[in-house]
Amino acid sequence: MKKLHRGLYIGRFQPYHLGHSKVLEVIVGEINEVIIGIGSAQESYHQNNPFTAGERVLMVSKALEEFDIKSYIIPIEDVHCNSLWVSRVTSMVPPFDVVYSNNSLVVELFRDSDVKVVKTPLFNRMMYSGSMIRELMLAGKEWRHLVPDSVAGVIDDIDGTGRIQRVAGSDKEF
Amino acid sequence: MKKLHRGLYIGRFQPYHLGHSKVLEVIVGEINEVIIGIGSAQESYHQNNPFTAGERVLMVSKALEEFDIKSYIIPIEDVHCNSLWVSRVTSMVPPFDVVYSNNSLVVELFRDSDVKVVKTPLFNRMMYSGSMIRELMLAGKEWRHLVPDSVAGVIDDIDGTGRIQRVAGSDKEF
Amino acid sequence: MKKLHRGLYIGRFQPYHLGHSKVLEVIVGEINEVIIGIGSAQESYHQNNPFTAGERVLMVSKALEEFDIKSYIIPIEDVHCNSLWVSRVTSMVPPFDVVYSNNSLVVELFRDSDVKVVKTPLFNRMMYSGSMIRELMLAGKEWRHLVPDSVAGVIDDIDGTGRIQRVAGSDKEF
Amino acid sequence: MKKLHRGLYIGRFQPYHLGHSKVLEVIVGEINEVIIGIGSAQESYHQNNPFTAGERVLMVSKALEEFDIKSYIIPIEDVHCNSLWVSRVTSMVPPFDVVYSNNSLVVELFRDSDVKVVKTPLFNRMMYSGSMIRELMLAGKEWRHLVPDSVAGVIDDIDGTGRIQRVAGSDKEF
Amino acid sequence: MKKLHRGLYIGRFQPYHLGHSKVLEVIVGEINEVIIGIGSAQESYHQNNPFTAGERVLMVSKALEEFDIKSYIIPIEDVHCNSLWVSRVTSMVPPFDVVYSNNSLVVELFRDSDVKVVKTPLFNRMMYSGSMIRELMLAGKEWRHLVPDSVAGVIDDIDGTGRIQRVAGSDKEF
Amino acid sequence: MKKLHRGLYIGRFQPYHLGHSKVLEVIVGEINEVIIGIGSAQESYHQNNPFTAGERVLMVSKALEEFDIKSYIIPIEDVHCNSLWVSRVTSMVPPFDVVYSNNSLVVELFRDSDVKVVKTPLFNRMMYSGSMIRELMLAGKEWRHLVPDSVAGVIDDIDGTGRIQRVAGSDKEF
Repeated sequence: MKKLHRGLYIGRFQPYHLGHSKVLEVIVGEINEVIIGIGSAQESYHQNNPFTAGERVLMVSKALEEFDIKSYIIPIEDVHCNSLWVSRVTSMVPPFDVVYSNNSLVVELFRDSDVKVVKTPLFNRMMYSGSMIRELMLAGKEWRHLVPDSVAGVIDDIDGTGRIQRVAGSDKEF
Repeated sequence: MKKLHRGLYIGRFQPYHLGHSKVLEVIVGEINEVIIGIGSAQESYHQNNPFTAGERVLMVSKALEEFDIKSYIIPIEDVHCNSLWVSRVTSMVPPFDVVYSNNSLVVELFRDSDVKVVKTPLFNRMMYSGSMIRELMLAGKEWRHLVPDSVAGVIDDIDGTGRIQRVAGSDKEF
Repeated sequence: MKKLHRGLYIGRFQPYHLGHSKVLEVIVGEINEVIIGIGSAQESYHQNNPFTAGERVLMVSKALEEFDIKSYIIPIEDVHCNSLWVSRVTSMVPPFDVVYSNNSLVVELFRDSDVKVVKTPLFNRMMYSGSMIRELMLAGKEWRHLVPDSVAGVIDDIDGTGRIQRVAGSDKEF
Repeated sequence: MKKLHRGLYIGRFQPYHLGHSKVLEVIVGEINEVIIGIGSAQESYHQNNPFTAGERVLMVSKALEEFDIKSYIIPIEDVHCNSLWVSRVTSMVPPFDVVYSNNSLVVELFRDSDVKVVKTPLFNRMMYSGSMIRELMLAGKEWRHLVPDSVAGVIDDIDGTGRIQRVAGSDKEF
Repeated sequence: MKKLHRGLYIGRFQPYHLGHSKVLEVIVGEINEVIIGIGSAQESYHQNNPFTAGERVLMVSKALEEFDIKSYIIPIEDVHCNSLWVSRVTSMVPPFDVVYSNNSLVVELFRDSDVKVVKTPLFNRMMYSGSMIRELMLAGKEWRHLVPDSVAGVIDDIDGTGRIQRVAGSDKEF
Repeated sequence: MKKLHRGLYIGRFQPYHLGHSKVLEVIVGEINEVIIGIGSAQESYHQNNPFTAGERVLMVSKALEEFDIKSYIIPIEDVHCNSLWVSRVTSMVPPFDVVYSNNSLVVELFRDSDVKVVKTPLFNRMMYSGSMIRELMLAGKEWRHLVPDSVAGVIDDIDGTGRIQRVAGSDKEF
């Protein structure tokens, strides 16, 4: 039994990439069970948020097969009000003992609610970042080496690259 | 009887202009009935969305008098979630056989729902565009030649030019 | 030119029936143009609200062909707050000079906003009522003589009777 | 490889009980992977919806340990509009080939969206029902024999019986 | 300086009555400042919630003139989700040290958030109750002896009795 | 008795500063009672909206102690629709005879609703502005001379400067 039983790791996973795997490699050594919270779950078909929550659940689920840990994967929709967000997360996931995030706002909100938060390190942010991968997809360049093979498969099954290219810049005007 | 019975043409109509008329001239040759979906219906009194849905219904209704076709004019509010938008549209308008739009996101969303979509051509986008007309209004320059006379009348009745000038840039700070 | 130019008649039209036609016969003599507001537009697939807004637009549109009057048919979604409802209606429809309704709350809300309201008479409420017609549909009894023929056609096209019977009582428990 | 790859089973699980297990015993023979959709995820601390989505995720997760099947457990919040519900579900979960439900409305909504639905049988509805179990909890009677042992443990950990008794009937008046 | 600095007293105040005054008489002896939270602030023009939040602010403000205590009067809208309600309240009012309520759900929600809650006594619940006063208003019977004179004045200024009688039972059908 | 009884002054107060005091000095000479509407009440923990509504209520309440006037301090959440905003404000605050604002949109919306609006003068906008003060806080420079001492105390109690620095720029990516 490790010191902390269950940890919550929150991200948007647009898409899941090898940077997330690096963080998980650290986390799994510290806890018995991991909850993956998929943030901004209501967003999709947008240049910055191309994939639905369900598609991201599938990516994370495939990626987690490489880790030997009990897991829960939970979509979390935004609320219009930052001060309600911690309560929303808490009501949607099983009880947890620690939160992992590299996002300053997430850290601030959980700390003000007296929840233990660990700021995760960034692994090669230049290479492993969702926005970088979406840029590569948009430009028609190679991105598959930045995500696990199983995740690349999920993205290819739904023609994710084509989707990003088609919806880019189109949300403002009918 | 034409090949397709009822078509849906979606726009924001902020305001309705002669570019919309050009598209409708093509559409009315292909269908028996047209549904005009007024997008972002909840927006108004904003520099980019100055007119209420009701004011836009009136503009479109006046403009359609020039066409000999059975029509439905339906305001459609945005949803916070792109993946729900097709369902929202479908529940708010009569059944339709084809969608007309020049917006890439609209095309992508309907195609992924297996709805027939026709990408409409753009007619002189430099002249006939809502954002151009709003710019002219804001600058106090002439814009009436870019919309049907009846639509200019609707806009003048509500002092649309004055409204754009008064609300421009004012939504950010009290 | 009649005394009042444009009137707004609000109902739920679940479904449109001959009682609505009786009211419209009176209204069309008093105004030049009529706006039909379809209330609770967001409700559907429920025992008390079986039809979508789009299906109700189609019913009303067919029924209005019997009247020689310029018309607008506008779905209106509920707001969670009665005190915002008049503003919502006003923003979604063209300007109007009078409201027709037999609903006490609608009358009260518009009167408190200094809008002219006429309480419509009820024509044979026992026979011509949406709830009565839904009861008959649910029980598998005859209801077609209570609606215009064209409306019965719309309902039959979507198997409205079957839908009411299938969804009755089913919204409470999965 | 079974005939259908991935199935979606939707319920409220307030709480998970042995009737759900009976349904799952049938389902796991027909599909390779199961998605459990936890309906009305936003509801909690109410006599009819005592448990948060996160608490229900934990119950279902414990119960699924008895089955040898790949699973996804996804909270699904209600939408205010039945006609949007299928889209919401579809966007929140991985792609699926069949839906299992004994709820008539769920069946109707998915069928109208051309999704394959199987109506699940009811196993001893008198004994195995969420409302029955909540009644027993409220009355302080024995209910643990109606749920898996692991689920009883989850409920006892959060004093679920006490919670139901304390919030019963209290939502109407401050 | 009293033991606890600032207390929050939550009610719906539909309308404010002498039972509320009795509770306040006790509370003011225990704290230096009182926050009055006006619950279900979004509700109005309904038989059970006739008065707007603003009208209730005025009632409470008049009634508090009888007490010598620093006060804050804050409308609080409901959230669709009980588990977010404590966070909503906390974000809308100044920091507080204790909550006063006689509502079991309010007590349960604050206790689960580790906030100190005091269950207020009921003073002659048969006479001093909002629902009783609304019943009397609806029946056209005398109710003014059950509220402070200043509150009766506020209600008479807006013809509160007339409003209840006019909107009673009218929210269900157009 | 002054000419106008009750005035509404709306601002975001992120944070309250001496420019607001200058406006109030003018206002209190014209009315008997003042309502302070705290706009965008739902926003907090954001670089441009760091403080919760409750924290801003406290700031305004402290600042008003310098003025000898009966006051009401009411948080007002945004609505997604400008055309509903006046109704929302009106339902949340006591009746008022005049609105004070320097925001063009607020002035336009109230004027179109036939409410008397006075555009407030700006006092040294370069120094006395919320955005300027937030910039100073973010940069770790001195800001306390721009707000009343009592307000500086409220901000220091919650480590407002630290909060702005920690959440700055962090809302976009997990």
